Amino acid sequence: VTGQCIGVGMIGCGTVGCGVARLLHEQGARYARLLGKSIELRRVLVRDMAKLRTSNGFSVIDRQILTDDPQAFFATADMPIVIEVAGGGGPVGNYVRKALAAGKHVVTANKALLATQGPELFELGRKYGAAIAFEASCGGGIPLVTALQFGLVAEQIDALYGILNGTSNYVLTEMTQNNKTYNAALDEAMARGFAEADPAADVNGQDAAQKLAVLASQAFGISVGEDHVQFEGIDELDLADVAFGIELGYDIKLLAIAERVGELISLRVHPSFINTQLPLAQVCGSFNALSVFGQATGHTMYYGQGAGQLPTASAVVSDLLNIANGWYPQAFSKLHMWRDGQLPPRLLDPQDLISRFYLRLSAKDVPGVMANVSGILGDAGISLGALSQHEVASGQFVPVVIITHQARQGSLFKALEKIEKLDVIDGKPACIRIVDMP
Amino acid sequence: VTGQCIGVGMIGCGTVGCGVARLLHEQGARYARLLGKSIELRRVLVRDMAKLRTSNGFSVIDRQILTDDPQAFFATADMPIVIEVAGGGGPVGNYVRKALAAGKHVVTANKALLATQGPELFELGRKYGAAIAFEASCGGGIPLVTALQFGLVAEQIDALYGILNGTSNYVLTEMTQNNKTYNAALDEAMARGFAEADPAADVNGQDAAQKLAVLASQAFGISVGEDHVQFEGIDELDLADVAFGIELGYDIKLLAIAERVGELISLRVHPSFINTQLPLAQVCGSFNALSVFGQATGHTMYYGQGAGQLPTASAVVSDLLNIANGWYPQAFSKLHMWRDGQLPPRLLDPQDLISRFYLRLSAKDVPGVMANVSGILGDAGISLGALSQHEVASGQFVPVVIITHQARQGSLFKALEKIEKLDVIDGKPACIRIVDMP
Repeated sequence: VTGQCIGVGMIGCGTVGCGVARLLHEQGARYARLLGKSIELRRVLVRDMAKLRTSNGFSVIDRQILTDDPQAFFATADMPIVIEVAGGGGPVGNYVRKALAAGKHVVTANKALLATQGPELFELGRKYGAAIAFEASCGGGIPLVTALQFGLVAEQIDALYGILNGTSNYVLTEMTQNNKTYNAALDEAMARGFAEADPAADVNGQDAAQKLAVLASQAFGISVGEDHVQFEGIDELDLADVAFGIELGYDIKLLAIAERVGELISLRVHPSFINTQLPLAQVCGSFNALSVFGQATGHTMYYGQGAGQLPTASAVVSDLLNIANGWYPQAFSKLHMWRDGQLPPRLLDPQDLISRFYLRLSAKDVPGVMANVSGILGDAGISLGALSQHEVASGQFVPVVIITHQARQGSLFKALEKIEKLDVIDGKPACIRIVDMP
Repeated sequence: VTGQCIGVGMIGCGTVGCGVARLLHEQGARYARLLGKSIELRRVLVRDMAKLRTSNGFSVIDRQILTDDPQAFFATADMPIVIEVAGGGGPVGNYVRKALAAGKHVVTANKALLATQGPELFELGRKYGAAIAFEASCGGGIPLVTALQFGLVAEQIDALYGILNGTSNYVLTEMTQNNKTYNAALDEAMARGFAEADPAADVNGQDAAQKLAVLASQAFGISVGEDHVQFEGIDELDLADVAFGIELGYDIKLLAIAERVGELISLRVHPSFINTQLPLAQVCGSFNALSVFGQATGHTMYYGQGAGQLPTASAVVSDLLNIANGWYPQAFSKLHMWRDGQLPPRLLDPQDLISRFYLRLSAKDVPGVMANVSGILGDAGISLGALSQHEVASGQFVPVVIITHQARQGSLFKALEKIEKLDVIDGKPACIRIVDMP
C-alpha cells in the first residue's frame, strides 16, 4: 500500500456494493485528504453485467470497470485491497481465499463466510501477510468490531447480549407496538429493504447466530463458529405470549447471547423476555444494539442501524481506510480470534442452562389442575415466581401463565413433556426464556 | 517497544491510577498472552508518598516503585510508555511535554489538558514520533474515541449529542425520578464517588465542555479547544421547570452538542429538554452516552459508565495495549485532529442558533398580559407552539409556560429582556433550550 493512489477491487455490486461506490465517489476528496493519497475503485466482479446499479437513483459505477470474469478481475494490476460484498459462500469463499493467497487485504461484510470459514481464512491471511477487516459483518453501521477489538481490548468480557437482526426486531416492534400480525410486519420489513430477499435466515435466528459467532470469537478470543450457536427464531412465536409478557412487564426481543458460565460458554439465539426498563428493551424497529458486560467497564451498549445500504457501506469504507492507512494490517496480525490451533470453545450443555422461564399452558378448568402442574414442576426442582390464570369468554380450556424462578433448562423441558401429556392440558405448552442481565 | 517486557511509567496514582495498577496486576497474564510480552509498571510519580493506595481494599502498588522526584521518574531506564492519570494542568502538562519530547508514548485521561493544550501536545508528539492515546479522557469506559477515530473514519459526521458528565446526569435523574433536591442529589453523587472533590466543573458544564472539545476535534477533524465551547451547567436550574417540562413530554439532560450548521459549527453545553422517547432520554444516573449523527450511518449511540475507577482504568489500559501492540503509534501519526497549522473552527455565533425554547414567566393575573407577551415575541418573529397558564393556590403572580417554534436565539433573548421589564412580569423569565435531533 504505497504510492499516490491505492487500487481497490470489489467482488459483488448489489445494495451494499453500490453504497460503497457511492461513498468513494461522494467522499473521495475527503478520504484522499485523510490518507494523503486517493482511492481508486479499479475493477468490480459481478455475476450479471446487465443489472442496473444505482444508489438514490444515480448510477454509481463506471461500466468500464465491471467484469464477470474472475480471471480478468484477479489479473488487474495494482489492486492490493479487495472488498467482498457479494455475500454467501460457494465461489465467493474461493475468491476471498484467492485474494488472501495473493497477499491482498480483504474487507468483507460476509458474516456467513466468517462464521463458517473464519479460522481457515484468518490462517490464510496471517500466512500471506494479508489482513481481513470485517466491521460490516456485524451490526451494519455500528462499529461493534472496532469497539471489541480495540476499545475494549483490556477488558475481560463476561457476556454479550445483542439485537443483531434488524428484520426480526422490526417485526417484533410492529407486532407489539402497532398490533400487526407477524406476516404483515414481515411483508413490510421486506418492502422497506431490511429483510433479505429470502428472509428465512433473518427470522429463524441463523443470521443473528452467524453474527454472534464473529462477535463472541473476538470478545472471548476463541474460535467460535456458527455450529457452536444454538438458534431459535421469531417464526414460531405466538402473539398471545407476547401480549401476556407485556402485561407482566417484559418486552420480547430476539437476543443473541454469549455468556461465560464458570469455565464454559453459553452461545444461543432465541426469543427472550427482558425487563422493559433495560436499555436493550428500548431498541425498536430496524435498529440493532449490543450490550457488553465486562469486569471493569460494567455495562456498555452500542446502538445504531444494523443494516441498510449506507450504514453498511460506511463500515466497509472505514475498514478500507484503516487498511489503506497502514495500521490495520499490523493490528490484524496481533488479533487473537480464530488463532491457528485454538481449541473449540468449551460450551455449556444447553440442558445445564440456568434461566427463568415464561410458560403458558392451556388447562382444563377443573379442580386440581394447578396442583398437578405445580407438583410436576416441584418434583423437577422448579419453583414458581408467578402464576396467573386468564379468564376466557368461552371454552373449557383456559390459558395459565407461569413465571418460574431460576431453573435448569433440561429439568424444565422434561417437566414440560410430562405436563403436555396430562389429560387436562391441551397442546404443547409455550415456553420463552426470561433473560436477566448482570 | 521491543523485547520481552515493556516498561511503563505512571504519573499520578489516585483513583484511576490504582485501578490501572490493579488491572495490570490481575489481568497481567492475559495481557502478556495478547501482546506476546509482559507489561511492567516500572515507576510511579506521585506528590504524596505516604498516601494509602488501594483498590477494593487491597494494596495495588509496590511501594518500591513510587517516587515523588520527577527527575528520578524521567531517568528510569527502559520506560517507552508513560501513563498520565494525575489530572489538571500546571506541572502535569510539563511532564507530558517532557515525556513526548523524549519520544515516549503517552496515555492520558486528562481532558482538561487536551482541551487547552491539545494542538501543542499533538504537534510535539508528531515531531518526536511519540503517540498520544486518550480514550480515557472522554466517556470513561465507553470507547468513544476509538469509535470516532477508527470505526466511523469513513463517515461524514453532522452532529454529536452527548451526556458526558455522570455527576450532572445523576443529579438530574435523582431530581426528576426521586424528587430529591439539587443539593441532596449532589451530596449523594459526591458520596458515591462520581463527582470530583470540587464538583464545580461537573455541575457548571465545564467538564462536559472539555470532553466535547476533544470529541468534536476528532469527529470533525478540526482544532477545537475548550474556549470554543459555550457552557452552562445544571447549577442554576429550577426544579419547577424540570417538572413543567416533564408534564409537556420532555426530559431534562445536560447535553454537550457539536453540530454542523451549514459551513459553521455550533459547540455548546447546556441543560436541554429532549423528547422522552429519544434513546438519550433513557440514559439515567451516572451513565454517559454519545449520540452521533452521520450522513451514511444515521444515528449511532454509545452508552456506559462515564467515570469510576475500573471503567476509566479499562480505557487507559486498552490504550496502553494498543500502543504496546505497535499499531496505535502508526494510526496516531495519521490522525487529523489538532493538525499543525489548522485554522480554528468557524463557529456559529450563538445569537444565530436556531432552536425551540421553553420559557416560564411569572405573570400578574390581569387581563392583557398574554397579549403583551405574545406581542413582543411576535414582533421578534417568534411564534408560539404551546402556552399554558398554571393555576396557583394563592398569590397574584402565576407561572406561564411557553414553548416557542423554531426561533433565533439572539432575537429571543432580546425579546426576553423586553418581557422582563414589563410591570406585569415578576423576575427573570426561565429559558431552557429544547433540542430536537435529526
